[in-house]
Amino acid sequence: MNNFSYYNPTKLVFGRDIIKCIGQELAANNVKKVLMLYGKGSIFKNGVYDTVSASLKDNKIEWVEVGGVKANPVISKVREAISVSRENDVDAIVCLGGGSVYDSAKAIAAAYYHDGDAWDLFAKEDLDISKALPIYGVLTISATGSEMNSGGVITNEETLSKWSFGSPLVFPKVSFLDPSIQSSLPEKQTINSIVDILTHLYEFYFDGTENVDLMMGYTEAIMKTTIEHGKVLLNDPSNYESRAELALSGTLALNRSTGMGRSGGDWSTHLIEHALSAIYDISHGAGLAIVFPAWAKYVYKDNLPAFVRFAENIFNIKEGTDEEKALKGIDSVIEFYKSIGAPTSLKDINVGLEDIDAITENAARIAPFGTVKPLYKEDIYNILKLAL
Amino acid sequence: MNNFSYYNPTKLVFGRDIIKCIGQELAANNVKKVLMLYGKGSIFKNGVYDTVSASLKDNKIEWVEVGGVKANPVISKVREAISVSRENDVDAIVCLGGGSVYDSAKAIAAAYYHDGDAWDLFAKEDLDISKALPIYGVLTISATGSEMNSGGVITNEETLSKWSFGSPLVFPKVSFLDPSIQSSLPEKQTINSIVDILTHLYEFYFDGTENVDLMMGYTEAIMKTTIEHGKVLLNDPSNYESRAELALSGTLALNRSTGMGRSGGDWSTHLIEHALSAIYDISHGAGLAIVFPAWAKYVYKDNLPAFVRFAENIFNIKEGTDEEKALKGIDSVIEFYKSIGAPTSLKDINVGLEDIDAITENAARIAPFGTVKPLYKEDIYNILKLAL
Repeated sequence: MNNFSYYNPTKLVFGRDIIKCIGQELAANNVKKVLMLYGKGSIFKNGVYDTVSASLKDNKIEWVEVGGVKANPVISKVREAISVSRENDVDAIVCLGGGSVYDSAKAIAAAYYHDGDAWDLFAKEDLDISKALPIYGVLTISATGSEMNSGGVITNEETLSKWSFGSPLVFPKVSFLDPSIQSSLPEKQTINSIVDILTHLYEFYFDGTENVDLMMGYTEAIMKTTIEHGKVLLNDPSNYESRAELALSGTLALNRSTGMGRSGGDWSTHLIEHALSAIYDISHGAGLAIVFPAWAKYVYKDNLPAFVRFAENIFNIKEGTDEEKALKGIDSVIEFYKSIGAPTSLKDINVGLEDIDAITENAARIAPFGTVKPLYKEDIYNILKLAL
Repeated sequence: MNNFSYYNPTKLVFGRDIIKCIGQELAANNVKKVLMLYGKGSIFKNGVYDTVSASLKDNKIEWVEVGGVKANPVISKVREAISVSRENDVDAIVCLGGGSVYDSAKAIAAAYYHDGDAWDLFAKEDLDISKALPIYGVLTISATGSEMNSGGVITNEETLSKWSFGSPLVFPKVSFLDPSIQSSLPEKQTINSIVDILTHLYEFYFDGTENVDLMMGYTEAIMKTTIEHGKVLLNDPSNYESRAELALSGTLALNRSTGMGRSGGDWSTHLIEHALSAIYDISHGAGLAIVFPAWAKYVYKDNLPAFVRFAENIFNIKEGTDEEKALKGIDSVIEFYKSIGAPTSLKDINVGLEDIDAITENAARIAPFGTVKPLYKEDIYNILKLAL
């Protein structure tokens, strides 16, 4: 087991009808005026906007609104929201939505007190973030885990860079998660949630750290819950108990708890996917479903024990040599993704051999990356070829 | 799944040689003078005192010392430490030891700013704790989980009340946990650790909440790790990897993460054990090993699915009716405890039928308790009879 430090001060308020408590929580923390940030309007249909507005009014909290955050959130929207926040002198951010809204809120929170451009958070490694606006969020799609961690990913539309940043100062102060809100999600988003959650688990599980029995078992418990209750939801989308299991899985999958004692995760699948969805406007989940099996086929020999354990414990594969088990495990992931309607190859999203040079170039800007096997430009190209 | 709120701001610094960072952490938080609290002197043998003292000196942090905290910590020592702390105007507590030292530190921290007697924390339910000294701890025995939660248990020697209190203000700010320190523990303490950790897991696992699949799987992962690596340690006490697995199991078993979506835990085994160890000066772990199987035999019919799942997943019991499986699971716990040298009956600690009235009286002062089956005085007596 590796040495580690774990810190996560986000308060998670979880369950039916808990969103209405947000105003009280803000008032208890002496917040007077907030930026209310949201996406493309689902909060007007699922009741979240009305519930939050009423709660803010009841607690005499003023707000200004910025909507229109995209699924792959962009830096221009972050800049716009910072201007609005500064003009209105807000003292907190209330973000309503999924990972893209949370990630944007984190960039706004940290850049609010920064003198230079907001993209500096992503481009300048030595930037010192010493202050940030507090974030209070309502999560409406469980997938990215952003509701209980300190990182975010934003795309710079000018350079097509989809990059991440992190700071302990941008842990949401409180996240409200009512799983019942997610019953109205389009099926496609539930599929993306399942894939995104599983991929966060893979990034740690397969990172190559030895002697992390407890974390392997813990992560397998989240994987099994995600698969089992994900299947239920595709047949019965308003099943509250399965929504709750999937939502809690999503939060725990990336609140860094599964990373205790590990090397920090591999993250190759994510980094290659970011290059893919920076160029093609596909969902993060779709990209991950395509990239992970290809990455796994390319690297499994470098971490055979984890791939064997995964095959045995998640898909009950008990026969064959270790290599056969590992490969059957990866095939089982592909079969599972097909069964839930996720894409599993670049062909499925109309990307061909002629396109992968550009994706490789984009991802290779930050290569080498990965802990199981450090990936250079050539490796990234080979993985994308396996994903065709 | 039940609605819940989860909040745990303790920073856990875990691994080899990390204790020496304590002074730097205190200095970064502008701490100038601390109360150093410890037990009966093991910290002088295992190097913790020297490492911490050197780190405090290096960072120009002054300290006053109070030692002699007992294994079942008492309120008189808490009062003594509060006096010393007030006289010396400390601005934080550094506690070095196991759960008893941590629990005492929490009581000192909260009562430091309280006008009345320290026992008010435990006896006055409506007491409002609005301020507490920050706690920085070095954990030397993994068992109680106190290093990453907000509760504590103290005994009032005058009334023989072993009671608990809790406040979000007494979460340790930082806990340092170097598993290698625990290699020098007497075998008996490792046995107590194993039992204490498992019992914390049981209290949530068997609390009767329905539809908590993820939490059942997560808790089983910690149970299996505790049993497997506990066995390794009894043969090979300085095995670092197993020390690390057991230590992390201990922290996660009671940082309340296994309680997400649950009713708050049953806690009957603990409450009956507290009565037992308030009267007889036995270790908490020994008491728990005796009480849990008796409690389980008394209540298993009220939560059969959990007892069956436990038997199947922890002890691989696949044959028989549900009732038979449940009973075999409980027998397997007893066999496991015997195999590691833990007591499994009151007889093992020389307590007989003639003694259980007094234990019943003590426990019944706060009855009824328990979520699976509310226990009244008569139930407590029956359970103690089953434990003979």
